[in-house]
Amino acid sequence: MALIVQKFGGSSVANPERMRRVATRVGKTADRGNQVVVVVSAMGDTTDNLITLAKELNPNPSEREMDMLMATGEQQSIALLALTLQNMGYKAISLTGAQAGVNTDFSYSKAKILSIEPARMEQELAKGNIIIVAGFQGVDEKGEIHTLGRGGSDTSAVALAIGLNADFCEIYTDVDGVYTADPRIVPRARKMKDISFDEMLEMASLGAGVLQPRSVEVGKTFGMPICVRSSFNENEGTMVREAKNMKQIECDIVVSGVAYDDDVVKVTVYNVNNKPGIASKLFTALSDAKVNVDMIIQSGEREGHNDISFTTGMEDTKKLEELLTKITSEIGAEGFDIDDNVAKVSIVGAGMITNPGVAAKMFTVLYDLGVNIQMITTSEIKVSCIIAKPGSKDVVIALHSAFGLDA
Amino acid sequence: MALIVQKFGGSSVANPERMRRVATRVGKTADRGNQVVVVVSAMGDTTDNLITLAKELNPNPSEREMDMLMATGEQQSIALLALTLQNMGYKAISLTGAQAGVNTDFSYSKAKILSIEPARMEQELAKGNIIIVAGFQGVDEKGEIHTLGRGGSDTSAVALAIGLNADFCEIYTDVDGVYTADPRIVPRARKMKDISFDEMLEMASLGAGVLQPRSVEVGKTFGMPICVRSSFNENEGTMVREAKNMKQIECDIVVSGVAYDDDVVKVTVYNVNNKPGIASKLFTALSDAKVNVDMIIQSGEREGHNDISFTTGMEDTKKLEELLTKITSEIGAEGFDIDDNVAKVSIVGAGMITNPGVAAKMFTVLYDLGVNIQMITTSEIKVSCIIAKPGSKDVVIALHSAFGLDA
Repeated sequence: MALIVQKFGGSSVANPERMRRVATRVGKTADRGNQVVVVVSAMGDTTDNLITLAKELNPNPSEREMDMLMATGEQQSIALLALTLQNMGYKAISLTGAQAGVNTDFSYSKAKILSIEPARMEQELAKGNIIIVAGFQGVDEKGEIHTLGRGGSDTSAVALAIGLNADFCEIYTDVDGVYTADPRIVPRARKMKDISFDEMLEMASLGAGVLQPRSVEVGKTFGMPICVRSSFNENEGTMVREAKNMKQIECDIVVSGVAYDDDVVKVTVYNVNNKPGIASKLFTALSDAKVNVDMIIQSGEREGHNDISFTTGMEDTKKLEELLTKITSEIGAEGFDIDDNVAKVSIVGAGMITNPGVAAKMFTVLYDLGVNIQMITTSEIKVSCIIAKPGSKDVVIALHSAFGLDA
Repeated sequence: MALIVQKFGGSSVANPERMRRVATRVGKTADRGNQVVVVVSAMGDTTDNLITLAKELNPNPSEREMDMLMATGEQQSIALLALTLQNMGYKAISLTGAQAGVNTDFSYSKAKILSIEPARMEQELAKGNIIIVAGFQGVDEKGEIHTLGRGGSDTSAVALAIGLNADFCEIYTDVDGVYTADPRIVPRARKMKDISFDEMLEMASLGAGVLQPRSVEVGKTFGMPICVRSSFNENEGTMVREAKNMKQIECDIVVSGVAYDDDVVKVTVYNVNNKPGIASKLFTALSDAKVNVDMIIQSGEREGHNDISFTTGMEDTKKLEELLTKITSEIGAEGFDIDDNVAKVSIVGAGMITNPGVAAKMFTVLYDLGVNIQMITTSEIKVSCIIAKPGSKDVVIALHSAFGLDA
């Protein structure tokens, strides 16, 4: 018998039939003698429909009122799932974020969870209830409702698991688990049985969008194992957990996976005046405009000037152009270039730390394919390269094979 | 400058266009220098759609989860109305029942408001905000969400007005105000400028469904004037208030209005054993089955037996029949009869108390029309008769004229 937190996304509860399927799944877990806490998102299109309605009434809606509005989507899901479970004969109760003791900071639409007060949930579990908690939301100390931002339901689930001292947290998705590469690109990709938090974090931020990166961070910080499973079958899934618990590390697997992301724009700002504070100004301005910057490279100095390149996931290149025109003139740069015909390929593996030459091997594979590397960044457990988008998927396939990952 | 609470029903905010119309109306009230607190219901069909969805998943949904689900409808309305007002340049903030300090007892789906904690609302008013409060809901001391039952938004609005010590409470409806009779039945019916709480209470419970009876009770207890107005025009409406503030009473108006209700079923239980506790058993069983009983008449004793007649608004005569079959056998009655071909006509007026002969005049009008009176009940300010449904509307017209109410 274990205490398990299960999280189901909005598409899993999009209609009554799917709602019943989720209830059946949850019920089976309870039937095996487990205590179950379920986190659900809003049903299917609910959130998008509410956003459309709000924008019709106010094109620039305040975040406070949007949070008030958005929180209703999850509240509907939890009540309906509780009713479905009750209809199947289970004891179940729904709790809003506030009722479940999810305390957030004061930041509408992108709040962070500060703490979980588990008292109410513990009472309900002691009564034999399956608990259904509204994901993606919490309250601050004044009782104001805050959402965690899109995808925040994963984080809710992991945080609740930690607050309840659960055995593990299951995240149900539309894929079987975490693969060594995207199976749509690499047909011979394999599902991993285990992956460390650090590897998952890199995979998640590199475009392998199975888990919300913040949920992995939270899981890592508190050592809460996260299991990624499919809501469509009973396959085992992939367990994300502390590396020390994993057999994998002890084997010779140096690279665990190959990640691919073509939702990337490369920006180069030319001839930036090399005075202190210029990079700070550039990236502060981008941050103020909520542009999420990923890789950053500053070239060597040349006559008191140098170039700064960075990548971003921002797809609105027109808006990006306007913004950069303004910023570059302010910081006295010569000009800039935006290239959205690029992709990022990465290799990830905790084994890299103790295995020199992994990056070199990657570069050799690219060289053999005649691929020019435009940017490189490395961390202890990953190497990422920006390359031209055409042919980039073949690079992923070649890397997957070269590092011995093919099934 | 006044502090005004305004309440708009679900049809007033059913779509973006109507939502904007309500916002314009609210804004105008604020423009005149008033502080405004608005109470809104769920948009149009939202509540019914949620009920349909819930019943598909659970034909016997628990009241606790239904309250969790239903409360989202109002929460959506308040956020959307706040956004609409903000878009028009007003300072506005939405508050859930919990945030507005609406404390209820522990009774899902039909909670009663215990108290209003106005601190948060007072803060927001001091900041110059128009406040939009979710009607129909509150929380108990444990933070559980309760709804007040259908129509409870009127009561929310009046209770908030009392809690805030507002000048008055405006209830916006689809009619201009309170009429001396239903204008669809009596073409010469007139709109009243004023009506006392007691009269309004009788009118409301007698089928003149402009205001929820409980909201009038609450208004009466705390002396909060309620103005019934149309959301479609700027006409003055009818003010419901303490009789002592009204000129009307001083004039010779004995009967203020004629009420009509054909949503009535008359039940007669024959030959009830005249032992103590039989009536108690009968009406306890009906109450347990949530059958709302209105008029009750017990005929004189005859050989240790007598008949009990009562009226109810229950339209499901099949279910009523099953229930009565069970109850009558339990209490040893000879049988029962259900008659749904009846109507209730009533005259209402605070002036009756000091004017004997009003009931007699009413009976004379009915006699002159050849109408047989099946049941009679009286109170200090009303007389009601159950008569056969056919021709009953002509009785209303005749009474309206006989008591000098025609325009």
